Amino acid sequence: MEMLDGVTTYLKDNPAAAHMVLVADSELVGPYEVRARTGDHEMVMDEPAMIGGGGSGPGPVEVALLALGSCQAITYRLWALRLGIELDAVKVTVEGDYDPRPLLGIDEGVRPGFTAVRVGVSLDGGDRTRFDELRAAVDAHCPVLDLFTAGVPVTTTLIR
Amino acid sequence: MEMLDGVTTYLKDNPAAAHMVLVADSELVGPYEVRARTGDHEMVMDEPAMIGGGGSGPGPVEVALLALGSCQAITYRLWALRLGIELDAVKVTVEGDYDPRPLLGIDEGVRPGFTAVRVGVSLDGGDRTRFDELRAAVDAHCPVLDLFTAGVPVTTTLIR
Repeated sequence: MEMLDGVTTYLKDNPAAAHMVLVADSELVGPYEVRARTGDHEMVMDEPAMIGGGGSGPGPVEVALLALGSCQAITYRLWALRLGIELDAVKVTVEGDYDPRPLLGIDEGVRPGFTAVRVGVSLDGGDRTRFDELRAAVDAHCPVLDLFTAGVPVTTTLIR
Repeated sequence: MEMLDGVTTYLKDNPAAAHMVLVADSELVGPYEVRARTGDHEMVMDEPAMIGGGGSGPGPVEVALLALGSCQAITYRLWALRLGIELDAVKVTVEGDYDPRPLLGIDEGVRPGFTAVRVGVSLDGGDRTRFDELRAAVDAHCPVLDLFTAGVPVTTTLIR
């Protein structure tokens, strides 16, 4: 909580530091295998053998769901601290309805991404009467939930 | 390409198999550390030491960008095969403009998620004259790009 207060005070006093640009690099290293890097961290994504991938990592659509679930979990921790709500355990299961046909070029009039996403959250802690208040605060402040529900302007550019 | 044709034919003949539900589980295992699982794959996300995390993995907002970049890379491979365009290398850099203040409870009237995302794609291959055609096909069919640009209905539920 002290570090959280420290960084909060710092960003209040130094608003220019709050304008961050996060960077993520992905490079195809196999038929469908991708080496992905952000900061000091690296991970592998891949497609299943069914379409000719090596199955060496999760697929990007699954990873998008992992980002949402993990962002929810971390935001629960953060806002439990903020609101003084005791929280001992957080488990989040995210389900996404997904149709791979548009990606494969089968046009059935469905969109290429998820059509619906469901987030189920299990909490454990001493103060169950305040869990609804906590959920409302989390859902108002969770960055990846905001991305999923509202979308964001994206530009794509080929670098020559 | 053969496996791709096989799965495409299969999904054309068995449309019920195309209605998939992808599942992702995330569990808080440290102050901010999350163990995330989907299928047989597991990864760790975490927050930086600055707010009291262990820095043992990338943060969920960065992972969301990795999912987008890697989905772009894989969709380039897939549609290059589909369109018969020779493609030797794909590198994707994703930048996301992000302000952490809303997450921390500092209300500056900005949204808690990304405000803009830029995708830069470097391609290498024999058929450069067709790269613009390829990019148009990729951007029309990339599942995570569709998620980012259009958003998706999300429900969140506390499981009692």
